Amino acid sequence: MISVAIMGHGVVGSGVAEILIHHNELISARVKTEVNVKYILDLRDFDGLSYSDKFIKDFEIILNDDDVKVVAEVMGGVNPAYDFVKKCLLKGKSVVTSNKELVAAKGAELIKIAEQNNVNFLFEASVGGGIPVLRPMVQCLAANRITEVSGILNGTTNYILNKMIVDNMDFDTALALAQEKGYAEKDPTADIEGHDACRKICILAALAFGKHIYPDQVSTEGITKISLDDVEYADNFGCVIKLIGHAELLESSKISIWVRPTVVSRECILSGVNGVFNAILVTGDQTGEVMFYGKGAGKEATASAVVADIMDCIKHIDARKYLSWEDGDSQSVADSNKPERLFVKIWSDSFEALEKQFHDTFGTAGIQFVKNKYRKEIAFITEEAFESETAEKLNSLENCNYKILHTML
Amino acid sequence: MISVAIMGHGVVGSGVAEILIHHNELISARVKTEVNVKYILDLRDFDGLSYSDKFIKDFEIILNDDDVKVVAEVMGGVNPAYDFVKKCLLKGKSVVTSNKELVAAKGAELIKIAEQNNVNFLFEASVGGGIPVLRPMVQCLAANRITEVSGILNGTTNYILNKMIVDNMDFDTALALAQEKGYAEKDPTADIEGHDACRKICILAALAFGKHIYPDQVSTEGITKISLDDVEYADNFGCVIKLIGHAELLESSKISIWVRPTVVSRECILSGVNGVFNAILVTGDQTGEVMFYGKGAGKEATASAVVADIMDCIKHIDARKYLSWEDGDSQSVADSNKPERLFVKIWSDSFEALEKQFHDTFGTAGIQFVKNKYRKEIAFITEEAFESETAEKLNSLENCNYKILHTML
Repeated sequence: MISVAIMGHGVVGSGVAEILIHHNELISARVKTEVNVKYILDLRDFDGLSYSDKFIKDFEIILNDDDVKVVAEVMGGVNPAYDFVKKCLLKGKSVVTSNKELVAAKGAELIKIAEQNNVNFLFEASVGGGIPVLRPMVQCLAANRITEVSGILNGTTNYILNKMIVDNMDFDTALALAQEKGYAEKDPTADIEGHDACRKICILAALAFGKHIYPDQVSTEGITKISLDDVEYADNFGCVIKLIGHAELLESSKISIWVRPTVVSRECILSGVNGVFNAILVTGDQTGEVMFYGKGAGKEATASAVVADIMDCIKHIDARKYLSWEDGDSQSVADSNKPERLFVKIWSDSFEALEKQFHDTFGTAGIQFVKNKYRKEIAFITEEAFESETAEKLNSLENCNYKILHTML
Repeated sequence: MISVAIMGHGVVGSGVAEILIHHNELISARVKTEVNVKYILDLRDFDGLSYSDKFIKDFEIILNDDDVKVVAEVMGGVNPAYDFVKKCLLKGKSVVTSNKELVAAKGAELIKIAEQNNVNFLFEASVGGGIPVLRPMVQCLAANRITEVSGILNGTTNYILNKMIVDNMDFDTALALAQEKGYAEKDPTADIEGHDACRKICILAALAFGKHIYPDQVSTEGITKISLDDVEYADNFGCVIKLIGHAELLESSKISIWVRPTVVSRECILSGVNGVFNAILVTGDQTGEVMFYGKGAGKEATASAVVADIMDCIKHIDARKYLSWEDGDSQSVADSNKPERLFVKIWSDSFEALEKQFHDTFGTAGIQFVKNKYRKEIAFITEEAFESETAEKLNSLENCNYKILHTML
C-alpha cells in the first residue's frame, strides 16, 4: 500500500481526490499496489463529502508521516507551495504538481532537490492541462535535438480570439462571455496579458533546451490591443490571430523566447486550434514537426494528468525519472533578430496621402495589402525584412500611425 | 556498456544505425551507459560505410550472443520477423520494432512472451512514425478510460486526398505524383486500399481497449473510389474527405472499428491535417479530446522513434514497461449501428425525375444539399438516421444510382 497526500482542495485538488477515491480499484490495479489517500490539506472545511475525514489543516502532519510517499501539490501560487514542496522532497517524498507558477519560478531548484533525495518531482499538468506533452517530449524525442517549441498555451485567450474571429465579437464582449462561462477569472489579467502562457513557455523551453528560463526574461505581450479589424484584416490574408508562446534555440546557443499575439497562416496546423483548446508544436531535427493538442485546462483534464503523475511516481517509487534541466542565467536569452514578414496596419487623417506614402515606401509588388478607405487604413504583410528595417520605413511616413504584429508565415 | 543489434538495413534500419553510431556520445550520455551497435543483420552487402564491419547475414549470431541485450527489428513483414523477434524475446533480449504488420498480427502473443521473460517489447514507431502516441496514450492517460480513437494514419492517402482537395487533381494524377515524390510505393495497394491504416488502428485499439483486434476483423475501405466531384461536394458542405481509422468502445463492451474515407467537418481539428502528416485523436472520459500530430513516416522520423524505444529499453533493462493487451477473439468487434449523418450522392439519366424523387423522399427542411443539373447529380448530407433507414430510402428511388460516404459531423 502506498499513501498519498493532496495539498489543496480547489478545482484541481477536488478532481484529484475524486479520481483517486472513486476510481481507487482501477488505479490500484494499474499500479499494482493499493493507493490510499491519507490526507487532504486545506484551510477550509469540507463537510458532507464521502471523504471528509481525510481533511487536515496542518502541513506538518503530512511532512512528518513517513507513510506518505507521494504528495500532490495543487494549491497554486508560489507561496507557500514552494516551501511545502521543498520540505516534502527533502523528506524523501515524491511530489507532483499542476502549479505552473511554481515550476516556472523554481523548477530547476526543485528538480535538483528531488535528484539529491532520489525522489521524483513531476509536473505534467502544469503545461497543457490534460495534454500529455512534457513526458512525450522528454521520452519519445530522446533521440532528437529539439530546435523550436511553439504553442497556443492559454485557453482563455484562445477562446476570446476565437469568438472575435468566428462570431465577429469585440474583445470586451468576448471577455465578458468567457467570464460568464467560467473560462476567464474575475481578474483576467494573468490570462489576457500573457503571464499564464509565459510561465508555460518557460517550462517547455527549459525541458526542450535544458536550461531554466525565468518568466521575467520572456518578452510577453497579451491580447488586449487586438481589435476586431485586426482580426478581419488577418482573415483577408488567409490568417488568424493567435496568442503564441514560442521558444527557439538559436545558432548562438542562446534562446529566443516570447509570448505575443501572432498572425498565423491558416495553412499552419495551429490555426485550427479553436475554443479553449491548447496545442504545442515541437520541432525536432529528426522528427520534424510534432503537435500535441487537447484541453489546456478544466477540472477533469488537469486532475487526470496529476493522477497519472501520481501513478508514475508510485510505479517508480525507487527509481528516478529523467526529467531535468539546469539553472538559468541572464545570458541564456537573446533576440532572434532574423528577417521576417510582419503584419502592419497604418492609418492617417488623409487616406490619399496615406495611400501615396504607402506605395512610395513599400511598393506593392511582393506584398499583400488591403485598403480601407472608410476607416482610412491600409493593412499589409511585408516582405521578409528585419523588424528594424520595417520600423524605420514606418517611422518615415508622415502623419501616420501604425501597429505591427508578428507573424508565423 | 550495452550492446544492440539492428535487424534490417533498409530505409528505417539505416536511419537507426546512423543515429546510434553518429550520435553515439549524446545517446550514451542520455542513457548513462555506453551504447554499442554490435551487429547489423542484412542479406545485402553494404560496403564503404563507416560501419560496414558490423554487418552479418546470420541471425543466429545475434540470438546466441548474450552481450546483445536489445534488438531492433526493422525488416518489415511478418516473416521472418515474427520468428526472429520471438526467439530474441525467449532468449531474454528486449526487442523494439517499427513493424506495424507484425504488431497488428502478433502483438498480443509477443507481449506475453516478453512479459514471461521479463524483457520489453516496444513498438512506438509502428504507429505514426515519429509521432509519440502509444506511450503517451498508456502513461499520461493512465487515469482515463479511453472511449474512442480516430486517426489519419496513412500519409500516402492523406497526401493524395490533399492534392485532390487543394489542387483539384484527380485521383490517378495525385497517385502518380505521390509515387514520383517517393510518398507512394510502386505497388500502392497497401496504402490506397487502407490495409496500412487498418494495421495501425488495430494497434491503437488494442492499446486503448486492452484487447487484440486482428486486421481481418476490421471493416476496411480505401480511397480508390473517391472522385474529384465527391471532394467538391464535400467542400460545399464545409467538409473535407479524409481516410479515417476509427475504434470506439461501445456500451456493450464490444468495439466498433473501421477504416474508410470519411467526410470530416472543417470544424474538426483532423480536417487541418494536410500532406503526408498523420494525426491521432484520442477521447478519454476525463481529458476529453487529445490529439497527437506529426510526420507518420519518413526515415528520420521513424528511426528516431525506434532509437527512443531502444533508449527506453536500455534505461529499463531490468524493469518491465507496462504496455500490454489481451488476446483477441471473434466476439470483440461489433457494428456501432447508431443514427448518423451520411453524405450521399445520387444521379440519374433524368435530372427532373431525380429532383422530384429526392424532394419527395428526403424533404429538404433539415438537410444540406447541392444540385448539379449539368452532371444530373444531387449531393446531400442526411439528417441523423440509421444507415439502414437511409439505404432503404435510397433503394426506393427509381432509375437512380447512389453512393454513400460516412461522416464525422
